[in-house]
Amino acid sequence: MTNRIRLGMVGGGRDAFIGGVHRIASRIDDHYELVAGCFSSTAEKSQASGADLGLPADRVYGDFTAMAQREARLKNGINAVAIVTPNHMHYRAAREFLKRGIHVICDKPLTSTLSDAKKLTKVAEKSQALFVLTHNYTGYPLVRQARAMIADGQLGTIRVIQVEYPQDWLSEPLETTGQKQAGWRTDPAQSGAGGSIGDIGTHAYNLTRFISGLELESLSADMQCFVDGRELDDNAHVMLRFEGGARGMLWSSQVAPGNENALRIRVFGTKGGLEWEQEDPNKLWFTPLGEPKQLITRNGAAASDEAARVSRIPPGHPEGYLEGFANIYSEAAQAIRAVEAGTKRPDGVVFPSLQDGVEGVAFVDACVRSSSRNAAWVTLNL
Amino acid sequence: MTNRIRLGMVGGGRDAFIGGVHRIASRIDDHYELVAGCFSSTAEKSQASGADLGLPADRVYGDFTAMAQREARLKNGINAVAIVTPNHMHYRAAREFLKRGIHVICDKPLTSTLSDAKKLTKVAEKSQALFVLTHNYTGYPLVRQARAMIADGQLGTIRVIQVEYPQDWLSEPLETTGQKQAGWRTDPAQSGAGGSIGDIGTHAYNLTRFISGLELESLSADMQCFVDGRELDDNAHVMLRFEGGARGMLWSSQVAPGNENALRIRVFGTKGGLEWEQEDPNKLWFTPLGEPKQLITRNGAAASDEAARVSRIPPGHPEGYLEGFANIYSEAAQAIRAVEAGTKRPDGVVFPSLQDGVEGVAFVDACVRSSSRNAAWVTLNL
Amino acid sequence: MTNRIRLGMVGGGRDAFIGGVHRIASRIDDHYELVAGCFSSTAEKSQASGADLGLPADRVYGDFTAMAQREARLKNGINAVAIVTPNHMHYRAAREFLKRGIHVICDKPLTSTLSDAKKLTKVAEKSQALFVLTHNYTGYPLVRQARAMIADGQLGTIRVIQVEYPQDWLSEPLETTGQKQAGWRTDPAQSGAGGSIGDIGTHAYNLTRFISGLELESLSADMQCFVDGRELDDNAHVMLRFEGGARGMLWSSQVAPGNENALRIRVFGTKGGLEWEQEDPNKLWFTPLGEPKQLITRNGAAASDEAARVSRIPPGHPEGYLEGFANIYSEAAQAIRAVEAGTKRPDGVVFPSLQDGVEGVAFVDACVRSSSRNAAWVTLNL
Amino acid sequence: MTNRIRLGMVGGGRDAFIGGVHRIASRIDDHYELVAGCFSSTAEKSQASGADLGLPADRVYGDFTAMAQREARLKNGINAVAIVTPNHMHYRAAREFLKRGIHVICDKPLTSTLSDAKKLTKVAEKSQALFVLTHNYTGYPLVRQARAMIADGQLGTIRVIQVEYPQDWLSEPLETTGQKQAGWRTDPAQSGAGGSIGDIGTHAYNLTRFISGLELESLSADMQCFVDGRELDDNAHVMLRFEGGARGMLWSSQVAPGNENALRIRVFGTKGGLEWEQEDPNKLWFTPLGEPKQLITRNGAAASDEAARVSRIPPGHPEGYLEGFANIYSEAAQAIRAVEAGTKRPDGVVFPSLQDGVEGVAFVDACVRSSSRNAAWVTLNL
Repeated sequence: MTNRIRLGMVGGGRDAFIGGVHRIASRIDDHYELVAGCFSSTAEKSQASGADLGLPADRVYGDFTAMAQREARLKNGINAVAIVTPNHMHYRAAREFLKRGIHVICDKPLTSTLSDAKKLTKVAEKSQALFVLTHNYTGYPLVRQARAMIADGQLGTIRVIQVEYPQDWLSEPLETTGQKQAGWRTDPAQSGAGGSIGDIGTHAYNLTRFISGLELESLSADMQCFVDGRELDDNAHVMLRFEGGARGMLWSSQVAPGNENALRIRVFGTKGGLEWEQEDPNKLWFTPLGEPKQLITRNGAAASDEAARVSRIPPGHPEGYLEGFANIYSEAAQAIRAVEAGTKRPDGVVFPSLQDGVEGVAFVDACVRSSSRNAAWVTLNL
Repeated sequence: MTNRIRLGMVGGGRDAFIGGVHRIASRIDDHYELVAGCFSSTAEKSQASGADLGLPADRVYGDFTAMAQREARLKNGINAVAIVTPNHMHYRAAREFLKRGIHVICDKPLTSTLSDAKKLTKVAEKSQALFVLTHNYTGYPLVRQARAMIADGQLGTIRVIQVEYPQDWLSEPLETTGQKQAGWRTDPAQSGAGGSIGDIGTHAYNLTRFISGLELESLSADMQCFVDGRELDDNAHVMLRFEGGARGMLWSSQVAPGNENALRIRVFGTKGGLEWEQEDPNKLWFTPLGEPKQLITRNGAAASDEAARVSRIPPGHPEGYLEGFANIYSEAAQAIRAVEAGTKRPDGVVFPSLQDGVEGVAFVDACVRSSSRNAAWVTLNL
Repeated sequence: MTNRIRLGMVGGGRDAFIGGVHRIASRIDDHYELVAGCFSSTAEKSQASGADLGLPADRVYGDFTAMAQREARLKNGINAVAIVTPNHMHYRAAREFLKRGIHVICDKPLTSTLSDAKKLTKVAEKSQALFVLTHNYTGYPLVRQARAMIADGQLGTIRVIQVEYPQDWLSEPLETTGQKQAGWRTDPAQSGAGGSIGDIGTHAYNLTRFISGLELESLSADMQCFVDGRELDDNAHVMLRFEGGARGMLWSSQVAPGNENALRIRVFGTKGGLEWEQEDPNKLWFTPLGEPKQLITRNGAAASDEAARVSRIPPGHPEGYLEGFANIYSEAAQAIRAVEAGTKRPDGVVFPSLQDGVEGVAFVDACVRSSSRNAAWVTLNL
Repeated sequence: MTNRIRLGMVGGGRDAFIGGVHRIASRIDDHYELVAGCFSSTAEKSQASGADLGLPADRVYGDFTAMAQREARLKNGINAVAIVTPNHMHYRAAREFLKRGIHVICDKPLTSTLSDAKKLTKVAEKSQALFVLTHNYTGYPLVRQARAMIADGQLGTIRVIQVEYPQDWLSEPLETTGQKQAGWRTDPAQSGAGGSIGDIGTHAYNLTRFISGLELESLSADMQCFVDGRELDDNAHVMLRFEGGARGMLWSSQVAPGNENALRIRVFGTKGGLEWEQEDPNKLWFTPLGEPKQLITRNGAAASDEAARVSRIPPGHPEGYLEGFANIYSEAAQAIRAVEAGTKRPDGVVFPSLQDGVEGVAFVDACVRSSSRNAAWVTLNL
């Protein structure tokens, strides 16, 4: 495609997980071409990763600031950059690109500290560039449909939300084995103050907010660190109070054997209930009160426009995690093109924003504060 | 069968739900014969129900005290009585039979107040008769197996428990329509201080204790009453702290559309996880850490002795709620016969006791106290 | 209950499986009292089983003819008899009771030969007594609902039926170990010409006929005997052609690892589809063409009258195999009482009849004939 | 990526379904770049589709022969071509490219007639180019694992295979509405002699062969055309006999309401069973005889090397249809690169071949012959 968005990447070298996901996601709908990268802060490692990806050596950097500077000057330099480093580097990397007008697509959580998150907000306010946060679970078609159904009043007034995100991969001290993914996620210096609550609890919280549209009033968190020697929570129990009276529970865990990536949300209102599970994402249960449960499928008989516009293939042909992630990239592409063309953003385009990212970091901060005060009720510092 | 236990019943007349369940449960394994009853406090209604059940008129009473007095004197009077009234009558009815040496099989929760529960304990201590509480979910074969597996160390040290019991039948103010079941359950005078937490939350709590064996240290409860005009909670969120460090969440709700009777428990330990759902009771998920999930079936390939001894038919032939309930009755029958014969209770016989009942009422009391103090951490008043 | 039907039993001694099921089924709704039996053709064994069941010795027999003769003469002799022997004895036993006016409740398949089945028809025609065949799967509430929905036209014209009944318990030559259940089922002298097709294929066929109401036109069967040394089929593939143009496939197997008792039927018409599985019997999937799938639950929001009248407890409280079996007994009780009172049978009472039994035996006979002729299309010899 | 394979496409213009799937599949792992195409036999339409895809006009053709001729001569002409037209054009299109040494990636079924299939074989034998058939379901990781487990003997000797592929989208005469997908699939001139059996039955058959490795001995097919006016089967029942004694049933249908794309295979051997469903592709049930069922997940605890090498992301992060399809493309890329480099094909690379395609067309031909002869047993004309 001749008019692909020229994409750079910071992070995502060999051994990384999420960098590869971003690259596939960026390709699926053919809106982007990866043309540059700083895949590691070690120049040699960065070049090796760049070579793996078929990039010319002069577009591969060992320093993201140098990358931002040079790419901003190049005639065909990048239009956008994907930031896929550990959390603590998000702020500094994003800043360099934003201030040079390069759109940023950044992995979550936004930053490792609330202070960084707020500084990033200031940087972004001064930039013409877009900021997109890859809370990728909002990209699933049936998550879009759930959101639309609630906005449309099909559940009536929301009363109760149950959201959970259990995993089991940190049930043992994997971080002591040199496993890189476990290493940085359990290190406060790289992850921030949240362990499971930052890594996956923020996804659960963001999904809750995205689907329900409810504003959080306060929360009470009881967090644990079950694995000896670990410094960050590996399990968190949170009670939620929303404005308007809805109540909820949120559970995140990385020590729950039998759970791979079991993000699940259930929303109950006066007129009906909804249930969606990330591991079975092409199905959405809907129960109008007093009627039998209905199994809504992606692109199936009862699929909404909101689901259809981010869906590629017919019902029964499962789309998965990568397609959901690609939807974030494709929404971003439409927004970027509108910005660059000076036109209105197309109807329906939705993606997690910097403000969502700030709220996510504030959520982690609030959980940590509450838990340290014996699960006292606290509000978000926004 | 010539040596059936002669059973009486208090409560359970026309329109009642749980009385019929007790009667079927008592028949399934042929240990009991219903021979007397006080099915209503209105003599005429009681006689009508007695006639429905084919009982002779002289064994049907309009007053449970009169029933206890006369049956205790009759040559072939009842050996045992099932008490299936609304909660607030449990204490007085049970007292009359216990003090006359008649075994009591009582529906849950034990009483409507903690004070009554403690008084009943004193009565029972002076009686030779047995007291059996029908926390019927402990009767399911795979609940027995889950308990045995945990006791056997197959999950390692327990870290996290997630238990929930959502229903949807009180999503609207059904109690205002004259529906009898809804009426007494939402009336503090008949139910006690707990709504959903007393009616079903106690089941969830009892099941947690039964399966895990863990002692509760403290809890924090946030309870709601969503339906206008209702006086008792119809939704409750509870965080649990167990002695030894395990943590849990408990959710009970009667306003969650799409949930019929969805009691579900998940237990996670250092070595593995378990999951069981009441609506699909013939299956137990077991995940040894680092191995694929296993689907254990009732009487199937991996069924334990503890499950097999309370199971009647081969795997794939589903047993259900009534059989689980019948297991409580059959366990009670074995215990009653041992008492009457002066012999040792057979190995493996287990049933919920008066002490479990007191703890259940204390659990409700603690949830109400915590919730009224903004979800403060409280301990059970035992 | 004073007016219970007095029930005798032939077969069902120690080590038997189905006899115990019949006894529980007869008790659940309290319509019967077991008062006599011939539990074994060895008098001593029969007495031992009778003693287990608390029967007086003079009502326990070693010979079913003697039992029929004496019980017919007794003032309070049995009204009805349950015949739960291996197949080859059904005809002779049933004959003795039918000709003395005693109602017969007989396990399936009706007989071990088509000739016996037809002779039994003649006997029954001369008798005032009822004949009830325990094709128990027709007793499940949601099977009743499926039947009613099809009769009501909710699926439109039926096009395709997929029915299967796989098990795995005969994957190895269990019959050579002395296991009694495997022994007689794999012995042509006791079972008849069908192995899996007789034991479980007849259930699948009967369920198909019961639910769909369609008449079979012809069938083509390819049957196998996979276990060395076994004389009867342990796996059968059958293609079905129904009158009016509907087509189907039927699979029965006892050598399919991972299947316990996995009877399952799917029916597809011009306007919608239905699916029901015996191992999850409280759910019925219904898909109106062009709408999302609906999960109908027993006694739930969309339950029909036909399901409700054979259901005891609220939705979410699972009923199982024993309750489904009990429904056959309870339907029979209503029919028996109507016969004895000379009144009209109550509306809605349905149970498998002698004619259904004859058709089942003819189905086995047809499968055997077809398979022996290289799966030629054959019709039932009715 | 600098060394992407240059891909052309024949078919796949606006309104097509499978062309878009091929394009996404070719991009996911970044092995290909689409550089040319003949998207329609109308030059104008072809150009419009090419413009949508960002292709330069001089690489867009209205005639596939012209395309083959010119691309073969261009310095940077295509290395490979994807053929995604209706079935009847596969042979002629493939021939033009194969004979010019351009690798062909062709949608299934291979051709619309057995005669064409055999002619294509001859063409391919003379070509240096590879031929890859996109029986995409063989690309799913857990299909690979199932195949490896069977080859490894984990199921013992295979006895029974149950395979089915029901859909519901042709329950009504959609082809009369102008819907393009329905139109050509129900037209014998474009599809060949098979309707559902060609469109999806061939997938089911191919999957059976791929997973089990068993050779077909003979089959008996009973096919129906339920929708008035339709000329090709919309439902097919097939009994299968494999060499060595295994037996199976195959069902394909496009008139089964409630089924979107429900390809499902179950394999039973002397030592265990396996089950896999396309709509839930990240799970594989495995039942070793006498043990509980195990739920194997993609990249989970028990994933095999064969699954891992075609899997991108961790367990619990669902991969779907597009990733499975992409695996065919990526396997093809590895094979193409080996051919072009004159090196050995990497270990483990597997894809459906021309021979598989011929067998698929022979399967359709055999089903049609059998069904026309009242389901006589026939062999494949290979």
